[in-house]
Amino acid sequence: MTHLPDVRYLAGFTGSSAALAVTGRAARLFTDGRYKSQAAEEVQAAKVEIVSGAPALAAVQWLSAQPGVENAGFDAAWATVAELARWKAGLASGLRRKFLVPLGEPLVESLRLMKDADELAIMRKAALLGCKLFDHILEFLHLGLREIDVAAELEHQARVLGAEGMSFETIVASGPRSALPHGRATTARLPRRGFLTLDFGVILKGYCSDMTRTVHFGTPKPKERSAYEAVLEAQQAAVAAVGSGVKCGDVDEAARSVLRTAGLAEAFSHSTGHGVGLEIHEPPRVGTGQTTVLRPGMVVTIEPGIYLQGEFGIRIEDMVAVTRTGGEVMTPAPKALIEL
Amino acid sequence: MTHLPDVRYLAGFTGSSAALAVTGRAARLFTDGRYKSQAAEEVQAAKVEIVSGAPALAAVQWLSAQPGVENAGFDAAWATVAELARWKAGLASGLRRKFLVPLGEPLVESLRLMKDADELAIMRKAALLGCKLFDHILEFLHLGLREIDVAAELEHQARVLGAEGMSFETIVASGPRSALPHGRATTARLPRRGFLTLDFGVILKGYCSDMTRTVHFGTPKPKERSAYEAVLEAQQAAVAAVGSGVKCGDVDEAARSVLRTAGLAEAFSHSTGHGVGLEIHEPPRVGTGQTTVLRPGMVVTIEPGIYLQGEFGIRIEDMVAVTRTGGEVMTPAPKALIEL
Repeated sequence: MTHLPDVRYLAGFTGSSAALAVTGRAARLFTDGRYKSQAAEEVQAAKVEIVSGAPALAAVQWLSAQPGVENAGFDAAWATVAELARWKAGLASGLRRKFLVPLGEPLVESLRLMKDADELAIMRKAALLGCKLFDHILEFLHLGLREIDVAAELEHQARVLGAEGMSFETIVASGPRSALPHGRATTARLPRRGFLTLDFGVILKGYCSDMTRTVHFGTPKPKERSAYEAVLEAQQAAVAAVGSGVKCGDVDEAARSVLRTAGLAEAFSHSTGHGVGLEIHEPPRVGTGQTTVLRPGMVVTIEPGIYLQGEFGIRIEDMVAVTRTGGEVMTPAPKALIEL
Repeated sequence: MTHLPDVRYLAGFTGSSAALAVTGRAARLFTDGRYKSQAAEEVQAAKVEIVSGAPALAAVQWLSAQPGVENAGFDAAWATVAELARWKAGLASGLRRKFLVPLGEPLVESLRLMKDADELAIMRKAALLGCKLFDHILEFLHLGLREIDVAAELEHQARVLGAEGMSFETIVASGPRSALPHGRATTARLPRRGFLTLDFGVILKGYCSDMTRTVHFGTPKPKERSAYEAVLEAQQAAVAAVGSGVKCGDVDEAARSVLRTAGLAEAFSHSTGHGVGLEIHEPPRVGTGQTTVLRPGMVVTIEPGIYLQGEFGIRIEDMVAVTRTGGEVMTPAPKALIEL
């Protein structure tokens, strides 16, 4: 295992350089000298070895020296073509051709897909922290602020409330900039009238939260109001569609069909959502035609949005945990249109 | 090109999903629907194509359809084994074996290695912003604060001063935790006496800054003071060693030999530094035995440190630009031991 969130998931190690090797008999975590103390503190599930070169190369060589180990599977989704060449070059010549086996199915992804009770408890806390931030920022917003001031306040408050950091670059997109689905906070001033989209998340014990709310300064025009209502209806329809045994594509379609009816199909230019956990983007993808079936313990975002270039954009996003009986909204912040 | 900082470097696109294909005659940037407006705004150097699947797969297919294009080179350092398999599967069967050529030498790395005048100007600003943050935080530090309060203040101030974000997770490691080279900010309170290591960086127009200072609360013991002096001497020796035509390994050795003489060789458990630019860690590596030769325009960190588990740690870090006549320290914050 070379993908760091996988290593963290299996062995609890949070450093930025590591590889984990597991045989039928033993597990060993390879990292570098910077992490000597930290690895000793964090890792119980594997023996730790400090190496001076690439941890993954050391892991491959260690595996090849284990008695009875004839093959080593590696995650084809995380090993680069160049790494694989180096790993092969580091093996005895007799082993180069067949020892390393690329695995098409990611090794740890299927384990990480279903969150257990401890993980869900952390993720609920992270999601609620996000809701607190939204409450806080509503009080804080006032005319004259720049988008980056809003981002700064949100991120500062997140830290004060105990977040380890933000789970992605905070999106603060105001006025016509709300039509950018991934609008970074800029020095643009908040508008007297128009939408403001806030998309942000925190990290708590390694787990990510993710939520979006769009609010309006001043009184919305009829077109803005009806567009907001359509996005909200689409979002609620997709949340309601979440359940054990449901295909991701059907959840996406629940949102998409509402926006299609509202004449906004073209303006909804992305997927409905994605899995979230130790990474901000994880499987499953909640998009058109996706056949992955939702199972209890999966956590996905539901975030339809519409983007009318030069005019405005609207996105509403919750984190939803799949339960045996449906879906649990983890981000219970208000979604009715807020006029400021 | 599939590595996003490379795509940004060549085409100016800052979105999170893209691939850039270049032939002798044309350049095309592939991204997804979320970035339609943004790509149109940002990209002049290539024609933009919005695709619904993986941008890199679309790029490979576009290349294979270009008249006169017989091969396509790709960065083996950035393509995963799984991606390569998908790209091959997307080609006409006659092209699968030979069309895609893994390039051992990274495609854009050698261009990015030497920063031009515009890049250096931005990086100087980013580095000076870091120095301002250090000044600010010295005023802010007081007893009773938790490490995360210090990180929060630093990050908030960075935003207010115009940073787009932090270039890595801010390290605030106090007391015995300073012995963790990569100590995340925790809820630990600042100690009455002991070291505090602050390692942080900002992002400005995509470029990263990176600096570390270690200060002391109360009066240091003789052992602490002499260790600090040794690290400072090592850091200054390595800074002085930076120059055009010098091997990275020789710069590392300049720091290491000072700490060896001080009996601290074992406690210096990492490399002396690394390149920095659009990414926080870039080539070259300034480590033992590295044969890469420094050239004007390269920017490296010089950051020796020592870590005595259970006792304390010290690290001092500057960003240094290689010039024709030596090295330019970009982070001119004070380095003499500060006692608070």
